[in-house]
Amino acid sequence: MSELLSRIGSPSDVRALPEEALPLLCQELREDIISICGRVGGHLGASLGAVELIVALHRVFHSPQDALLFDVGHQTYAHKLLTGRRDRMHTLRHAGGIAPFLDPRESPHDALLAGHSCTAVSAALGVLEGRRQQGHRGHVVAVLGDGGLTGGLTFEGLNNAGGSSLPLVVVLNDNQMSISANVGAIPALLRTREARDFFEGLGFTYLGPVDGHDLPALMRALREARASSRPVVVHALTLKGKGFPPAEADAQTRGHAMGPYEWRDGKLVRSRGGQRTFSEAFAAVLEDAMARDPRVVAVTPAMLEGSALNALKARFPDRVHDVGIAEQHAVTFSAGLAMAGARPVCCIYSTFLQRAYDQIIHDVCLPGLPVVFAVDRAGLVGADGATHQGTYDVASLRPLPDLHLWSPMVGEDLAPMLDTALVAPHASVIRFPRGTLPPLPEGLSAGEVPLRGARWLLRAEQPRLTLVTLGPLGIAALEAARGEPGWSVLDARCASPLDEAALLEAGRSGHVVVAEEGTTRGGLGSAVLELFAAHGLMARVRLMGMPDAFVPHGDARVQRAEQGLDAAGLRRAGLALLAGGGR
Amino acid sequence: MSELLSRIGSPSDVRALPEEALPLLCQELREDIISICGRVGGHLGASLGAVELIVALHRVFHSPQDALLFDVGHQTYAHKLLTGRRDRMHTLRHAGGIAPFLDPRESPHDALLAGHSCTAVSAALGVLEGRRQQGHRGHVVAVLGDGGLTGGLTFEGLNNAGGSSLPLVVVLNDNQMSISANVGAIPALLRTREARDFFEGLGFTYLGPVDGHDLPALMRALREARASSRPVVVHALTLKGKGFPPAEADAQTRGHAMGPYEWRDGKLVRSRGGQRTFSEAFAAVLEDAMARDPRVVAVTPAMLEGSALNALKARFPDRVHDVGIAEQHAVTFSAGLAMAGARPVCCIYSTFLQRAYDQIIHDVCLPGLPVVFAVDRAGLVGADGATHQGTYDVASLRPLPDLHLWSPMVGEDLAPMLDTALVAPHASVIRFPRGTLPPLPEGLSAGEVPLRGARWLLRAEQPRLTLVTLGPLGIAALEAARGEPGWSVLDARCASPLDEAALLEAGRSGHVVVAEEGTTRGGLGSAVLELFAAHGLMARVRLMGMPDAFVPHGDARVQRAEQGLDAAGLRRAGLALLAGGGR
Repeated sequence: MSELLSRIGSPSDVRALPEEALPLLCQELREDIISICGRVGGHLGASLGAVELIVALHRVFHSPQDALLFDVGHQTYAHKLLTGRRDRMHTLRHAGGIAPFLDPRESPHDALLAGHSCTAVSAALGVLEGRRQQGHRGHVVAVLGDGGLTGGLTFEGLNNAGGSSLPLVVVLNDNQMSISANVGAIPALLRTREARDFFEGLGFTYLGPVDGHDLPALMRALREARASSRPVVVHALTLKGKGFPPAEADAQTRGHAMGPYEWRDGKLVRSRGGQRTFSEAFAAVLEDAMARDPRVVAVTPAMLEGSALNALKARFPDRVHDVGIAEQHAVTFSAGLAMAGARPVCCIYSTFLQRAYDQIIHDVCLPGLPVVFAVDRAGLVGADGATHQGTYDVASLRPLPDLHLWSPMVGEDLAPMLDTALVAPHASVIRFPRGTLPPLPEGLSAGEVPLRGARWLLRAEQPRLTLVTLGPLGIAALEAARGEPGWSVLDARCASPLDEAALLEAGRSGHVVVAEEGTTRGGLGSAVLELFAAHGLMARVRLMGMPDAFVPHGDARVQRAEQGLDAAGLRRAGLALLAGGGR
Repeated sequence: MSELLSRIGSPSDVRALPEEALPLLCQELREDIISICGRVGGHLGASLGAVELIVALHRVFHSPQDALLFDVGHQTYAHKLLTGRRDRMHTLRHAGGIAPFLDPRESPHDALLAGHSCTAVSAALGVLEGRRQQGHRGHVVAVLGDGGLTGGLTFEGLNNAGGSSLPLVVVLNDNQMSISANVGAIPALLRTREARDFFEGLGFTYLGPVDGHDLPALMRALREARASSRPVVVHALTLKGKGFPPAEADAQTRGHAMGPYEWRDGKLVRSRGGQRTFSEAFAAVLEDAMARDPRVVAVTPAMLEGSALNALKARFPDRVHDVGIAEQHAVTFSAGLAMAGARPVCCIYSTFLQRAYDQIIHDVCLPGLPVVFAVDRAGLVGADGATHQGTYDVASLRPLPDLHLWSPMVGEDLAPMLDTALVAPHASVIRFPRGTLPPLPEGLSAGEVPLRGARWLLRAEQPRLTLVTLGPLGIAALEAARGEPGWSVLDARCASPLDEAALLEAGRSGHVVVAEEGTTRGGLGSAVLELFAAHGLMARVRLMGMPDAFVPHGDARVQRAEQGLDAAGLRRAGLALLAGGGR
């Protein structure tokens, strides 16, 4: 078993194989990918679809002298297996193990670090231009999924590459779907003869379409592209999940990315049990709001499944808008909806919201439009790693005037927060983490509508210290504080604007620990410091949050504990602050 | 004179005119536009080119029942003149006067607020969809310049609109240039028969090209578009600066936007005198660096003129890359250049950098690439107003690991800062304001290379208070502090990472005023508070900066004084802090 693959240590070994051995190599790659994803989860469908393409790329081009830049890199498990990482693939997506996407620090054959889509063409054009100026020969190839073709950055790159006359090779791995099915005009265009017109209009020589599972045809097209002296696109048609029936049948969703426990003994097993996620709880709350008010509509950039909006789309097909991988458009389109009197709820991951920072500022906040942003995956995301951490939303959005920034501690907070946001005359953010819902602590209620600021979880009679938290950390703080005399716990709930009265009361306890799952540089803790400074309130304050570095893939619970973002850590921090430890 | 225009109070008056009167109306509009720009400056070229188009739009569509969304809105002086604002047009771009772009709060005929380009198609699609759901009939028109067609957001909007089958009308006002000449494949495509293929491929019915100064032809095309039941694009060819020879001859640059003093008695007079700007000084320093090191290259998104890079482009045509209106690509392309070993300097305005926030995080900082960002127009920008203020760069960039954030106080600081950034193994930002260079205060020098942190401008022997500043505010602080016993002044120079030793010394003076031209929510001041908190250092701190609101157009010097960001204001703030005033 795996008799060929076990002898492949680098791409040169792939090139040394006789051509007739390649189908067997592809078969062995598929077996490995299926086995690995069964054990550790991952992006199964895309990687199965790109097996022949990756073998052909390594036959025709000489990595790393030729630079292969894979967009996103979730289709590249075959590439990882062919570039010396096979013996560590069982550590995929685990702490210290093989990265979920590609990373030049992991292999010289990973030319591009990318977990967000649409960056490959622009980066490849830069690499080609930079090499050209230094007299470096060698080809530069951007490998792009069709989903990434709807994103504006890809188009900006294509426009510049097509106008440049540089011999950039773009390989379009067209499996007719991104994470969800693709939307817009481009996907339809790709399956017609106009695909040629489109790329030729952009200044590219068009080669294809070519069957992306026909190795000889692929290699012919890639060789022709390699010989080109100008920009060229190779259009390869592939099948997501190719070679594994369950994934082929449902490549759109379960085949895209999944956890190991859903995949047992070669069968898909959906075994989440009763563990409801924040995403699912938010979708249910949104469904209620849509049922009550016909003005409420939902917008998602290609995240119907990830944001748990599939049921909503089925119930309200005309009021749930999947705009494809197009985060900027998702936000500005939402602004337009609000201009027309609708109440749009734009559902987006924290890390992808970074793509639309200007649109939030310029298109939503500046004209004062009441768009609601449901920001999912805020905080640590675990296995998806550095590219996907939800670290910067609070710090980057907090300065925006009249943008209210809510964060639920428990699922029960979602309804009053959404209801509050939907009646507000300005934009709002509701940020919630990846993962399952914590239970509502005894004696607490979700809160009135409209919500007004912070909530005391524990209020000491003679307070010496207050733990101030955002999001589910309130539960850990409550656990940390119980039994500590004089400790109070305040769930800030809203990072902007602050509940000034409650936070000043917290400050008057003399010692304040502010804990949040996000950067401490400019986050909630800084807001608290700004408030105290403005009021001349002198208190000892300790800020806790995500580290001042990019956080790699790993177990989010472990990473939280490492940062002291659990009950034990918060108690330690409080005790140290009381003992006079500055840092 | 202006016998027709003086009787136009709203678009319905335009529609009431006999068709044969329209050429005269256009002539009167041009005379007004030329006269207004002569007196108060503004976007002359684009507005002259769009006169017939705007008259035709108001003849064919019924604003505001039909929504006209102008992209950017700098071509819309004729629209302003036809919608009841003629008597106030002499206040254009001045405090309290007519806005530089469009604003729904100024007129119900301004459907879209926009000073950044590329938003109109997405917003218009949202308006159309939102109206449709509420049963509102009425047409929705997005009017787009060809420059905005290279921006990714426009493409995302077109892809979604073309796939939607909604009857969105897109009018392409194609004058073959944005601010600088357009780049990439698209501009060339627009002048060929492939333009039709391109838009049809995106799902649009294509009408045109039509002569954008031929009123009857324009109205015919717009009526046909209005009757369409599906997405349609009207491609109008116009001449920037049309009808005024000096602007026609040089519409690309001086005709785009200019100050009133350059325009006297009907003649273009370049009268800036010896007043050198920060942009010019940076370009000169960059030219030196490029002359010394062949790896240094410059990248700009359509800002060759605004960033004063024209001379650089002439001297190093292959090493200055104007990528067009495509901020995301500018950054990711720069990342690619750095991956290949080049030392890219990406020159971009603070407000437009917001468009590339994710690219800075994900494509530059995460892989640790040494891209240098020259961030121009940081802080208050004056006449361009709310859409263009450089408010959020420090707060949004400060949390990013290993991104060094420099700001020069005087022009002499630029060379050591750029030299430091160019030898750094990580990304750097050099943020500088719009406007002319202040003189180097006596006794100061520019600083060693590599720079290490802050610079004491004044160091009291027995310090009671320290003014901490970023950028040119150091000069005002120096003036504020002179004669005040015990006052020190520290030019922070680098907002991230902080010079901790110097700032802790500042803190030990007991009273600290931090002043910066940017938001105080998460800016330098917050960084100082975070540092003090981490060290348990108790000091009274006052943060000063731009207000917690969008700042409208006006005189930047006046606005600075209103915020206390001048010598008098800083002195007042210091004295109040010493007197114990918390706020």
